[in-house]
Amino acid sequence: MDTHTFFVHLLLILIVSRLLAELAVRFQAPAVIGELTAGVILGPSLLGWIEPTTTIQLLAEIGIILLLFKVGIETDIRRLINAGRQSLIVAMGGFFMPLLSGFALSYWIFNLGGLVSLFIGGTLTATSIGITIRVLSDLKRQHEKEGEVVLGAAVLDDVMGVILLAILYEFSISGGVSVTNVGKVLTFIMLFFLFAPIAAKLISVMIRRFDDYSTTPGLIPIMIISLVLFFAWLAHVVGAPELLGGFAAGLALSRRFFLPFGMALHNDRKFAGRIEVQMNPIVYIFSPIFFVTVGLSLSLREIDWSSPFIWSFALSFFIIAVAAKFFGAMLINAGIRQRVAIGLAMVPRGEVGLIFAELGRSTNIFDIEVYAGMIIVITLTTLLSPFALKWFYMHYFEQSSSACDQYPANGPLTR
Amino acid sequence: MDTHTFFVHLLLILIVSRLLAELAVRFQAPAVIGELTAGVILGPSLLGWIEPTTTIQLLAEIGIILLLFKVGIETDIRRLINAGRQSLIVAMGGFFMPLLSGFALSYWIFNLGGLVSLFIGGTLTATSIGITIRVLSDLKRQHEKEGEVVLGAAVLDDVMGVILLAILYEFSISGGVSVTNVGKVLTFIMLFFLFAPIAAKLISVMIRRFDDYSTTPGLIPIMIISLVLFFAWLAHVVGAPELLGGFAAGLALSRRFFLPFGMALHNDRKFAGRIEVQMNPIVYIFSPIFFVTVGLSLSLREIDWSSPFIWSFALSFFIIAVAAKFFGAMLINAGIRQRVAIGLAMVPRGEVGLIFAELGRSTNIFDIEVYAGMIIVITLTTLLSPFALKWFYMHYFEQSSSACDQYPANGPLTR
Repeated sequence: MDTHTFFVHLLLILIVSRLLAELAVRFQAPAVIGELTAGVILGPSLLGWIEPTTTIQLLAEIGIILLLFKVGIETDIRRLINAGRQSLIVAMGGFFMPLLSGFALSYWIFNLGGLVSLFIGGTLTATSIGITIRVLSDLKRQHEKEGEVVLGAAVLDDVMGVILLAILYEFSISGGVSVTNVGKVLTFIMLFFLFAPIAAKLISVMIRRFDDYSTTPGLIPIMIISLVLFFAWLAHVVGAPELLGGFAAGLALSRRFFLPFGMALHNDRKFAGRIEVQMNPIVYIFSPIFFVTVGLSLSLREIDWSSPFIWSFALSFFIIAVAAKFFGAMLINAGIRQRVAIGLAMVPRGEVGLIFAELGRSTNIFDIEVYAGMIIVITLTTLLSPFALKWFYMHYFEQSSSACDQYPANGPLTR
Repeated sequence: MDTHTFFVHLLLILIVSRLLAELAVRFQAPAVIGELTAGVILGPSLLGWIEPTTTIQLLAEIGIILLLFKVGIETDIRRLINAGRQSLIVAMGGFFMPLLSGFALSYWIFNLGGLVSLFIGGTLTATSIGITIRVLSDLKRQHEKEGEVVLGAAVLDDVMGVILLAILYEFSISGGVSVTNVGKVLTFIMLFFLFAPIAAKLISVMIRRFDDYSTTPGLIPIMIISLVLFFAWLAHVVGAPELLGGFAAGLALSRRFFLPFGMALHNDRKFAGRIEVQMNPIVYIFSPIFFVTVGLSLSLREIDWSSPFIWSFALSFFIIAVAAKFFGAMLINAGIRQRVAIGLAMVPRGEVGLIFAELGRSTNIFDIEVYAGMIIVITLTTLLSPFALKWFYMHYFEQSSSACDQYPANGPLTR
């Protein structure tokens, strides 16, 4: 690709997503809707000006990893652990219910094959951790109880999703699954989550020391980005999603991180503050590229909108996709409003659903109609639930009184 | 390319260049030497771990444009204009002397063909604006008189280089050159330089207004990057090098920018300060990628080091390459030490020389030996002159007393 073509694409991505995000906020919608819509408009679905090329996808990948890094840095690890049991219930419910009900609907009602039905179930298990978290932080509910539960559940869901994807992939190629492999991946991921934040913390102490000696500017952003890239790569090596590496690195650098057994690594709040000030502009540049790329990847033009099968198929699975995610949320011990909010927040399938659908298509397990139906389901869950969640909060919660607007809005949320 | 492979490459680029830059500073060398060396070590010349792929080259291109943006923002436009006449002399001398003497040496002494000799002369005209500016700012001499002269000369040299490149390209394809085309490009570039900063200033005032209304964070970095990309693209459209678009945008946002006829666009110093704080981390991440990529692109392994022709060829042209750049500097009205410093600063050929050499090779005008010779000349000028310049400053100038360390070092330059 020519340099100047790339520049124009990047320029369009940044400016159109920003304008639509501002517009979305003005119309009481979450900002992320504007960014997703920018992708739909600029991409193959509508104007066809921009394709998600390798470079843009790599920048988008950095965007989501940095966003998870930022989420990690703002997370209170104690509260995350406290919410752990409830997150687990939400994640388990929001994983197995869509898998089983999706499979059942596909296999018994639509009479599709076993493997197709398994992939459809798999596609429905996904939770887009990025979109979920962005909506909650756009609404400044990230640090409320439901925010913590959803964050934990989305992380667990992502881990389970990756394992399921690996199983389905193995199954679709060899027709069988090795339990040892699954166990190995699971063990690695658990070890990663136990030790990665501790290792990242130790490295960050080294960066702190290094920073005192350096005479050339820019040490902090370069070392922190390197740390994040390293943990993203490490996550990939152990079989976990790369974005969880960003999350682990962020957790380690958060102001409230603590080491087990009260290990003597003082948390330097001033240093944590400097990291945030220097990293924020970088996160703000990269993260919209991710959401626009999700929009670019929805190929809505390929869908034969006049086919009645697609509509009945998509609507049935959309209902399942929403209802099944509520199931887990309904089991936990919390107020009904919080449970509804948690259920709604788990609905967006986003990029994770797209990965499943894409794998289904590329292995010829999904034909074009099933693929189109899944794309509609993913699009609806991704675009509608942020609206629903915002509407729900506006009508059933008082305005959040939380002072910690750490994905900060410069002014009041609504005008 | 796999995402995780790309992450490892980016990680290596950032961390190795940083470590070697710190090491270089410790050994009294400019930081940029560390970054260039990182590229030579990681690239095809030595370890062969990283190739300059499309994505990395695009990130590098963003890096040099953002660096020029930063240079622009720190430039006092009045002083740049005041230095204009002397810059013009340095640029003209540093352009025509290498072109003519390079051609003469090649044509009459080495008996090479006319077109080859023209391309060799062209390769020698280049000045690497990025390396030149980085060395001066590593030395904190960017805002001294010689810094202003060199900046202006490097900008003019880049414009002349691009026009010469276009002419040579046209000539190598069609065997002739259209004077109308050259005149058109020249007019466009002049118009661009007259109007681009004014347009950028007007847009920046709009961004300022927009910023007051926005409720979502990240407006400034996104809009400023968009502005820079837009002007880089615009520069390309009129036929100028893209990095000059970044420079024009930076000039417009500098604290000391003024509009002709005292037009009433107040320069908001506080806003300019906010832009710098938010843009610096982004510049620090991207600009080392550029210098590492220059190092990656030097394919020193392809050179047959045992060939005596290559050595006599390369050394002859190296002497010409250095001497010819001094010529222009010697003509201006300044102290001898300043003239030597200006001459030395104009020597690095860097990426601009590589573009000429690459074009020569890809059109089969350069055979492998001539190409190798040119690569050696480019490498020597790029790697040696920063050392020479630093050594010269240490021995013939007192320590700079300038307080405006705006490509700031966190501590004293030497320890």
